[in-house]
Amino acid sequence: MSLRVDLNCDMGESFGRWELGDDREMMRYITSANVACGFHAGDPRVIDRTVRMAKEHGVAVGAHPGFPDLVGFGRRDIALTPEEAYTDTLYQIAAVAGFCKVHGVLLQHVKPHGQINNLAFHDAALAGAIVRAVQAFDPNLILICQAFSEMGRQAEAAGLPVAWEVYADRAYTAKGTLVSRKQAGAVIHDAGLAAARVVRMVQTGRVTAVTGEELELPVQTVCIHGDTHGAAEVAAAVRRGLEAAGVQVQPLGA
Amino acid sequence: MSLRVDLNCDMGESFGRWELGDDREMMRYITSANVACGFHAGDPRVIDRTVRMAKEHGVAVGAHPGFPDLVGFGRRDIALTPEEAYTDTLYQIAAVAGFCKVHGVLLQHVKPHGQINNLAFHDAALAGAIVRAVQAFDPNLILICQAFSEMGRQAEAAGLPVAWEVYADRAYTAKGTLVSRKQAGAVIHDAGLAAARVVRMVQTGRVTAVTGEELELPVQTVCIHGDTHGAAEVAAAVRRGLEAAGVQVQPLGA
Amino acid sequence: MSLRVDLNCDMGESFGRWELGDDREMMRYITSANVACGFHAGDPRVIDRTVRMAKEHGVAVGAHPGFPDLVGFGRRDIALTPEEAYTDTLYQIAAVAGFCKVHGVLLQHVKPHGQINNLAFHDAALAGAIVRAVQAFDPNLILICQAFSEMGRQAEAAGLPVAWEVYADRAYTAKGTLVSRKQAGAVIHDAGLAAARVVRMVQTGRVTAVTGEELELPVQTVCIHGDTHGAAEVAAAVRRGLEAAGVQVQPLGA
Amino acid sequence: MSLRVDLNCDMGESFGRWELGDDREMMRYITSANVACGFHAGDPRVIDRTVRMAKEHGVAVGAHPGFPDLVGFGRRDIALTPEEAYTDTLYQIAAVAGFCKVHGVLLQHVKPHGQINNLAFHDAALAGAIVRAVQAFDPNLILICQAFSEMGRQAEAAGLPVAWEVYADRAYTAKGTLVSRKQAGAVIHDAGLAAARVVRMVQTGRVTAVTGEELELPVQTVCIHGDTHGAAEVAAAVRRGLEAAGVQVQPLGA
Repeated sequence: MSLRVDLNCDMGESFGRWELGDDREMMRYITSANVACGFHAGDPRVIDRTVRMAKEHGVAVGAHPGFPDLVGFGRRDIALTPEEAYTDTLYQIAAVAGFCKVHGVLLQHVKPHGQINNLAFHDAALAGAIVRAVQAFDPNLILICQAFSEMGRQAEAAGLPVAWEVYADRAYTAKGTLVSRKQAGAVIHDAGLAAARVVRMVQTGRVTAVTGEELELPVQTVCIHGDTHGAAEVAAAVRRGLEAAGVQVQPLGA
Repeated sequence: MSLRVDLNCDMGESFGRWELGDDREMMRYITSANVACGFHAGDPRVIDRTVRMAKEHGVAVGAHPGFPDLVGFGRRDIALTPEEAYTDTLYQIAAVAGFCKVHGVLLQHVKPHGQINNLAFHDAALAGAIVRAVQAFDPNLILICQAFSEMGRQAEAAGLPVAWEVYADRAYTAKGTLVSRKQAGAVIHDAGLAAARVVRMVQTGRVTAVTGEELELPVQTVCIHGDTHGAAEVAAAVRRGLEAAGVQVQPLGA
Repeated sequence: MSLRVDLNCDMGESFGRWELGDDREMMRYITSANVACGFHAGDPRVIDRTVRMAKEHGVAVGAHPGFPDLVGFGRRDIALTPEEAYTDTLYQIAAVAGFCKVHGVLLQHVKPHGQINNLAFHDAALAGAIVRAVQAFDPNLILICQAFSEMGRQAEAAGLPVAWEVYADRAYTAKGTLVSRKQAGAVIHDAGLAAARVVRMVQTGRVTAVTGEELELPVQTVCIHGDTHGAAEVAAAVRRGLEAAGVQVQPLGA
Repeated sequence: MSLRVDLNCDMGESFGRWELGDDREMMRYITSANVACGFHAGDPRVIDRTVRMAKEHGVAVGAHPGFPDLVGFGRRDIALTPEEAYTDTLYQIAAVAGFCKVHGVLLQHVKPHGQINNLAFHDAALAGAIVRAVQAFDPNLILICQAFSEMGRQAEAAGLPVAWEVYADRAYTAKGTLVSRKQAGAVIHDAGLAAARVVRMVQTGRVTAVTGEELELPVQTVCIHGDTHGAAEVAAAVRRGLEAAGVQVQPLGA
């Protein structure tokens, strides 16, 4: 039986007149699209065309709810109460689900965006609010979570389907968290290196931490960044590398 | 067989720290709540509690999509393209539908808010975009329309369920449009007068225009305003008047 | 020579259709208005009429910059970088200063709003950014600061005019910080008690902490809340109390 | 005595994470920058760095107020009341003026953005509101206006300094209005052609309408677009063409 993995990427992060990322190009390599919901990025036109584009490419669609902070692109800590996190998440998932419904596409998953995702790694109240919103909307939705995260722990405890995620282009600490972007070596820019690293993670369930330790990680989906320089190159290399290694690259829910 | 009618009211038009209207009081008199969706008013917490409150009162829930204009409260003309109107409407309906789903409430209807509703009375392209969004999301949703409106005409032509609406507190022109608020006599402030007028409209399907003509109007739902001075008094009087006349006051979809 | 003190109050916190506070009533009692700048509350119409109203009442005008968070009313922690805090503060001060210019009113002071003010009590980087923005725009602007705050310390070190502020209706800890609203006794609701407390603070420069200690506090301006139940009553009582005690109540810059 | 003209360009239309236009490149060719104020585009960081960049390049700074419509980029008609147009314009000018003050730069001019500018060509109430806002803030500000526009007429009548503007890359009707972008030939994409056209307009005060008529136009400033494909090329060609023709290219206020 062959190994399989999903490739996910943040999509639909344009807003009005402003374009961001080359979604059309990235769609060629990925299998799951995290669609921005209008709070940190995205607007109803962008959501509509991103869902349509994903459908055309056979890419599964997920909601990518973020902090209500357009000018900060969801990258700044905002101290939401659990009620705020729950209702903001529910609102955003539902809005994207509406476009899926109209396009005859299943809403496959949810992946929180940027800083709200980072905070929910550790913050139990925030993680719980997100898990409750996803489950209340649809208990069959898959929540993409990092290994060792509070959000992943709570999702599992609640019986919500979880897809464990690794990052193609980020270094890990010995605790399984991402090395801060402020540290040297945090981001892997070389496409070949990123691809080789992903293949090894998928084949062995292991990654070497930045401090040398071997770390065991469940790997069901790999996050590819779409808005960085050379994004398409990394995505293409990862996809080719996985296929060359005989790994089936397909959506989570397939 | 007895006559029946629905009483609808705009609800959930608070935003963050700002309260508007006495929704709890109005819920006692109405049968359908038009819930603001976050574009002209409302936020995810307000939507959540409004849907919950409607459920508790046995009041049916509808989405009340508006122009993307918080500071203008959706009351200013904005020249949306049909694509913008379609996607904005779809997004808003879907978001409110998500809260209905979570509360185990059926989303019964859609009523466009304020100025977008006014413009869709005459503007065929706008009306068409709204009708398409409602129908694409759920062809069983009831669209609340004014008699003689382009939106009503297109909804019927498309096979979408329509509920014809009259206003409890507004004077009509001979063409069946509302007399502009800028003209004297446009708004009926006396609760008893409004109630008597509604009872007559429901019983006879007729209203006397401001210029004296008798006008035939289909009447399936009556709009009660919730944010004006004396709103609850008018609502109570209309409800009592209808019940005293033996009219069944119940939600559209009941 | 007689004692003097200023009474300041947050004003202009309505937004579009949503009214908040009874500014016209509060203007009768206060001497300095902290005018919301459009980020947490206020819009250009509200700013315009608030500045005009202050001028009519002989009340001095200050800018009241807040977090860029309408739906949260500036009450949620947002992790701004110093550059973000500096530029957001500068933008907001300048906008309100424009309305002062047009109305022929001096912009007297700046008081940060809500949670950004709370955070700048302790956060040196944030406090520094605010101080730099105020000073860069106009080094004669008075910055309203709480005693013992990092912001006050930095403003003084920078040579910016500081007005030390006490709260009419809030209990103090032994360290001079406000008792958290989550604790019982944090807010003084009795108008007479608040008034007596303010008179004593102004006359003696002392306040009794919630734990019994006597605390020395510089007192140049007293904050009165405008959006709480009974606000006008407290304001009236404080004003009367001060005048009865022979204290001159007048703007900071007078 | 030699001819002179100003080259103006919309600048600072990035927002948060989203970049738009290559302001640094365009600064090499232009003499006046119309800086977006945060309503249709721009944010406090963008304004700050745009004003700084203009100063470094010796480019004069103007405010570029637009409709309050980020998602629509100020390109959709919004039916503002005169009070709304006045206060929105004043707010935006004041905010940008604050950054000028801090950078020690004179605010030279105002040019309304996109659709509000288009509407003020014909709409007397809107034009009047903008003129009043500019004049109230600073009667020495230069208002950039199109020939034959209502806004230009009212600005002159009010005694406000006016700079008459032509477009480098747009075709004109016989009435002196711009040919609608929806018509073929509305936009001149060829850099050499645009440059030759500008040189002729500056030298002769005439332009050939799309229908062949010769039109007399006052020409004090030429608008160069910064966000279209090939923008820098057009800008460079226009600048070179003017200089080769012996025209002095310098800011309006110089």
